[in-house]
Amino acid sequence: MSSLEFYNGKPLAEQVADYILNYIIDNNLEVGAKIPNEFELGKMINVSRTTIREAIKILVSRQILEIRRGAGTFVSERQGITDDPLGLTFVKDKTKLALDLVSVRLMLEPEIAMMAADHATPEQIGEMKLQCDQIEELIKSGRDHMEADIRLHTMIASCSGNSVVEKLIPVINSSIAVFVDVTNRALGQETIETHREIVNCIAERDAEGAKCAMYMHLIYNRRVFRQLEKEEKQLSSIT
Amino acid sequence: MSSLEFYNGKPLAEQVADYILNYIIDNNLEVGAKIPNEFELGKMINVSRTTIREAIKILVSRQILEIRRGAGTFVSERQGITDDPLGLTFVKDKTKLALDLVSVRLMLEPEIAMMAADHATPEQIGEMKLQCDQIEELIKSGRDHMEADIRLHTMIASCSGNSVVEKLIPVINSSIAVFVDVTNRALGQETIETHREIVNCIAERDAEGAKCAMYMHLIYNRRVFRQLEKEEKQLSSIT
Repeated sequence: MSSLEFYNGKPLAEQVADYILNYIIDNNLEVGAKIPNEFELGKMINVSRTTIREAIKILVSRQILEIRRGAGTFVSERQGITDDPLGLTFVKDKTKLALDLVSVRLMLEPEIAMMAADHATPEQIGEMKLQCDQIEELIKSGRDHMEADIRLHTMIASCSGNSVVEKLIPVINSSIAVFVDVTNRALGQETIETHREIVNCIAERDAEGAKCAMYMHLIYNRRVFRQLEKEEKQLSSIT
Repeated sequence: MSSLEFYNGKPLAEQVADYILNYIIDNNLEVGAKIPNEFELGKMINVSRTTIREAIKILVSRQILEIRRGAGTFVSERQGITDDPLGLTFVKDKTKLALDLVSVRLMLEPEIAMMAADHATPEQIGEMKLQCDQIEELIKSGRDHMEADIRLHTMIASCSGNSVVEKLIPVINSSIAVFVDVTNRALGQETIETHREIVNCIAERDAEGAKCAMYMHLIYNRRVFRQLEKEEKQLSSIT
């Protein structure tokens, strides 16, 4: 792009942001790769340093780039996935939202567990077993296991061989944690056991068993939110 | 917030952006609502106009706000959903991506069609029938029906009563259109017929029928991408 066309009224900084994003994709820059500095970008794109800086800020706020002080600007590990990519912040009834999220998990994750049983490598299975140990330890010592839990479900999704579910599952699972505080209602023993059953079935290449264990796990979760909904309704009918 | 705490090293403009987002949520500002102007926000938050302006730019780039020249700043219809919320830009094999997206649609949309048969209002059914007419007209006159197609699937998702699928389905359906050019491979007659069958089953409250029709529709779509994948493999084995 030696000179910029000012098409469709998009602000210049946004156009430059698009240009930098395309540069990252066309040059196959991986997560964590360093991008050219402001000076180099300015020469490539033929716009002012101020515009470059503004474009970089846009890409940082979109979680596509991250700035490490003194080191430079890098492709972010977030790969453009913002804190609330589905705009669920704007859904008002948060308990219903939690139930709706579990309902989507029920559509996706049993299928994904089946796919994982077909595609997981021995290395991935080993890692998932370790992750089960870690979650058990956290639960038994009374600490928050939410993040470790999301990580295990993301690992299972990664074993599916489907690039979309790998991105989608952490988004959906994190949303529940963000929008509804479930830490005090954790299902300790049920979580430990159903997690292990899912991973053991994947290890034994028992796809049907992995699917069933995932259903069991999610159904326990659904009960918690359903109970929460009932309690809220009772409370609001009293007051 | 009368004075800002500079916790966890988050830049001031990002903190102010979070504050404005919370203001929108706490005050139940709907899509299209006008937010206070720079001067009023500056007084509320007690930071400079420059910082307010920067925070607003961040929220605009996250598609949470939109600026209408001469009118003010408004809550965006996008509700914070960016152009590529799942970061699929970073998936390299676009044909496999299209197949993976169809695979996720196969997990979600037949279930959603069932839910729609249970929850759609007569008004929604009327609108979906009109949308089927519009798609048929576009296909028969040889014009691009992709956008109208995404709109119909979003309408079906809206009838499900699940707030997450309503946000998820347009994201997944648009992704296929953005990342893979399918306009020349459209399934004309099959699309017209299966769309109508889905909507008719919803109208007749035939949930199982709606699910089957949706499977049929998606399976036709899957075949197109599978064929594309085969052709690409043949091509790359020749060259």
